[in-house]
Amino acid sequence: MDKVGRYEFMAEPFHCDFSQRLFMGHLGNHMLNAADFHSSARGFGMNYLMTIQRSWVLSRLAIEMDEMPWMYTKFNVETWVENAMRFFTSRNFRVIGDDGKVYGYGRSIWAMIDTESRQPTDIFTIDNGAINNWIESEKECPIDKGGRVKMTDDAAFVRTIETQYNDVDINGHINSVKYIEHVLDLWNLEWYREHQIKRFEIAYVAEAHQGDHLSFYREQTGELEYCVRICKDDGTECCRSKVIFK
Amino acid sequence: MDKVGRYEFMAEPFHCDFSQRLFMGHLGNHMLNAADFHSSARGFGMNYLMTIQRSWVLSRLAIEMDEMPWMYTKFNVETWVENAMRFFTSRNFRVIGDDGKVYGYGRSIWAMIDTESRQPTDIFTIDNGAINNWIESEKECPIDKGGRVKMTDDAAFVRTIETQYNDVDINGHINSVKYIEHVLDLWNLEWYREHQIKRFEIAYVAEAHQGDHLSFYREQTGELEYCVRICKDDGTECCRSKVIFK
Repeated sequence: MDKVGRYEFMAEPFHCDFSQRLFMGHLGNHMLNAADFHSSARGFGMNYLMTIQRSWVLSRLAIEMDEMPWMYTKFNVETWVENAMRFFTSRNFRVIGDDGKVYGYGRSIWAMIDTESRQPTDIFTIDNGAINNWIESEKECPIDKGGRVKMTDDAAFVRTIETQYNDVDINGHINSVKYIEHVLDLWNLEWYREHQIKRFEIAYVAEAHQGDHLSFYREQTGELEYCVRICKDDGTECCRSKVIFK
Repeated sequence: MDKVGRYEFMAEPFHCDFSQRLFMGHLGNHMLNAADFHSSARGFGMNYLMTIQRSWVLSRLAIEMDEMPWMYTKFNVETWVENAMRFFTSRNFRVIGDDGKVYGYGRSIWAMIDTESRQPTDIFTIDNGAINNWIESEKECPIDKGGRVKMTDDAAFVRTIETQYNDVDINGHINSVKYIEHVLDLWNLEWYREHQIKRFEIAYVAEAHQGDHLSFYREQTGELEYCVRICKDDGTECCRSKVIFK
């Protein structure tokens, strides 16, 4: 089996925005699905991990796009493991059309936890370090790795939302994809008529649950660069995100 | 070509709720996709209609489920045109596993509009009444047709939400699927731990746009039956929905 997995998706019309381009949240969802299909086919997917009380936890996701697929367009998400360490593994993505057109790239960092203790566990204990057989370090992913998003205390409060039933995932936590939507909802349609998302980055810091109020704080850190902090009622930071527009 | 179209989907993990069953909104989306694939393959799909200044508009959708597909389950959405009149057509759905297990059914009513005037147009003018070649009136769809949802003025105000960028569809209107999510968000996780949705019904009455505030009013009309009215700031009703739990 190839080290790189390739999965076909379509920009479904109800997953596209007013400009008839795929929403970033849905692209993120396709990447998470591709990651799941790829790891499952190679023996370290969620479905298997659940049987041994382990789970992958998405720690960071960065997506950089030249262009978003237009509605009804079929496209492929390629994914591969760039490297693996004891407690973290990095997985990359390329979004590419059947005609070879590259739409953009993604990078992600994952931890593995014990689902009982919720503590990080050693990735190499799974099937005797089997993930090491799948490392693909040569394939290019020419976007910035990202890192800790730096914010000051000057970030301005934008809004508080109450999380609802549809925000909650299969583990009872706020859905990783929904955070992407909530962050991008901080800008209105007028803004998106003039700007596209060049790069979207999010770090998942702490879990939130249904009913939690999430407060969004935003700080402009460059001409078209913004950082966003999402906090729960008690001030705990759940997520930190950076959005660069063009 | 068969009068009934059959399309395979999977209950993707990020499209499932805390009980690891597919969200109703995502099932609705799969049905709308199936409708689109079916009509496109038979010469009266959205993509063709757009070239002649016409569009399908979803008027009503009712879904009745015995069970929601569990995460990672592959299932099929079958769809067919039950009948067509000058200004409305009804299209049915069956959700069925590869093993023949029936999960549930759906019914929908569609109008066709002129995209410039936004007025209803005659469905039979499309390709000389071609839709009549695809009527399948024998296939069973054993769920209630529904109809006008009756509500009194006693419906209680629940909440107002401000619509955002991710709520808006390719036509610049609030996304039909997002209304389903917003209605079902009127109940919290505690409720869904005790109850499943038996039947969901929604009528789309008037269009809303990003930035519109939507106010939700709810009235209990049976032991586990609730009606919901969604209104814009000026009081215009956008949607009316009925939810029956079990």
